Amino acid sequence: MPQGDHLPRLTQAAALFTFAMDAVDETGLVRPLLIPAERPLTVYIDRQEIVTLMTLGQNPEWLVLGYIRNQNLIADLSQIESVTVDWEVGAAAVATRTGQFKAPAKDAPRVVTTGCGQGSMFGHLYDQVSQLQLPDGQATQAQLFSVIDQVREHPSVYKQAGSMHGCALFDLMGDDAGAVQDTPLLRLFIEDVGRHNALDTLSGWDWLQSPDQRVRRPLVYTTGRLTSEMMMKAAQMAIPIVMSRSGTTQMGWDLANRLGLCVIGRAKHRRYLCFAGGHRIVGATQPG
Amino acid sequence: MPQGDHLPRLTQAAALFTFAMDAVDETGLVRPLLIPAERPLTVYIDRQEIVTLMTLGQNPEWLVLGYIRNQNLIADLSQIESVTVDWEVGAAAVATRTGQFKAPAKDAPRVVTTGCGQGSMFGHLYDQVSQLQLPDGQATQAQLFSVIDQVREHPSVYKQAGSMHGCALFDLMGDDAGAVQDTPLLRLFIEDVGRHNALDTLSGWDWLQSPDQRVRRPLVYTTGRLTSEMMMKAAQMAIPIVMSRSGTTQMGWDLANRLGLCVIGRAKHRRYLCFAGGHRIVGATQPG
Repeated sequence: MPQGDHLPRLTQAAALFTFAMDAVDETGLVRPLLIPAERPLTVYIDRQEIVTLMTLGQNPEWLVLGYIRNQNLIADLSQIESVTVDWEVGAAAVATRTGQFKAPAKDAPRVVTTGCGQGSMFGHLYDQVSQLQLPDGQATQAQLFSVIDQVREHPSVYKQAGSMHGCALFDLMGDDAGAVQDTPLLRLFIEDVGRHNALDTLSGWDWLQSPDQRVRRPLVYTTGRLTSEMMMKAAQMAIPIVMSRSGTTQMGWDLANRLGLCVIGRAKHRRYLCFAGGHRIVGATQPG
Repeated sequence: MPQGDHLPRLTQAAALFTFAMDAVDETGLVRPLLIPAERPLTVYIDRQEIVTLMTLGQNPEWLVLGYIRNQNLIADLSQIESVTVDWEVGAAAVATRTGQFKAPAKDAPRVVTTGCGQGSMFGHLYDQVSQLQLPDGQATQAQLFSVIDQVREHPSVYKQAGSMHGCALFDLMGDDAGAVQDTPLLRLFIEDVGRHNALDTLSGWDWLQSPDQRVRRPLVYTTGRLTSEMMMKAAQMAIPIVMSRSGTTQMGWDLANRLGLCVIGRAKHRRYLCFAGGHRIVGATQPG
């Protein structure tokens, strides 16, 4: 059976990203403005209501898949038959191949996190994730600087409308021979109202890739803060290096150290701070 | 019975806000750094587990009260006997006077929002909130500019450690005679890893005030984005004017218009944009 037969069928229900309105500035001048859309999308799996995500709606099918993956609701993509997004009713209907999905116990503890969105998850996930083994993976400083440049130059809804988080998935692998190149390949750039949605959407896209299309040496860049939950999602996606223009928190730092995850924050132009996992940066001056 | 007998007993379990660690910069230099704490706090009401909040831990008892209030879990503060926070076990035990708290139905829809934290809430809340009547309340431009200045000059953990949201509750009432003064009184400034926690903490504090200590003409400033959920919290707190240095979203804007809530964003120095509810700004130049 060819690979494609295992992939879920997806709608392509991208919605309008921005909404035009008139603001009034401090001098009384009317200022036409674009603001980001924010719309509820209720996820059902085999007709059971799972969660309502508040999203920009750029790639809702990938978002739903990534949410399912990162929350560990379904272990294997081949179990999913289809994802059908209908903005008219604000619903994403996920059908499994068996039609027998069992939601996690209703009295399972919920965690509401510090993150921008998708904060809710089941408490045992943290413990599970901190046991994960990340793949090998290193980046050169030249590659890190290139990531910063590429993200800065990428067209974005943020530049139009603000109030948005962006997330990008890079491949550090230069060519099939494995030669290191200074310019990592930007595979996907996603924006959403919350940094969690953006990362989950990358995860959903990544899940759908066939082995030959897969990102071989992944690095994720996010504009958002690197809290514990962002580290958890990176680990679920087997990403060994995460970068951000923002900072981290104590719990995020602690989890990164347990996982051996390389965490680079405050990344701007030719500067950054490595918070954890510095062994994954090659060619950097070592202290001392 | 004096008023005080109705107030819940609270522990005062403020935790350390920052954590010292060593980052390494792009030149290999070790850079000692403070990063914000982020710790799980599981809320129990009458021994039933409600939620786990990821928080800085500045005023956890107020946070718990504000969460209960803004999620509409308990309608009346006098129903709460005590809030006991114990960081050793990461738990906040809330006892009601009857000891008979009933959690919302376990299969009630959950909403995971775009916000920075406390994203989870029950879906019907949105509809309830959009019916609320906000109190009268107007601000002058001079007052708005003073709010911006006061927040900028206020000492903050953010200035030390970054990666944090701040929230401030102001009273626009000048004196008992009701004369307008240009400098609103800053009643409380709260920081947390998520903007939702910070606003909920203000709400908990506000709930505890006796009638004569209450903020009479409230205005809230937040460093965070004004998404729909932030508007909902403001409405639950009967705040008619919200300000932010950041922007809004379509759903936030829509809810503000329904509520007649004044929403002022991009507030910096002597500039701002009024997104909704401009009738609440006095002395502003009107367009045309």
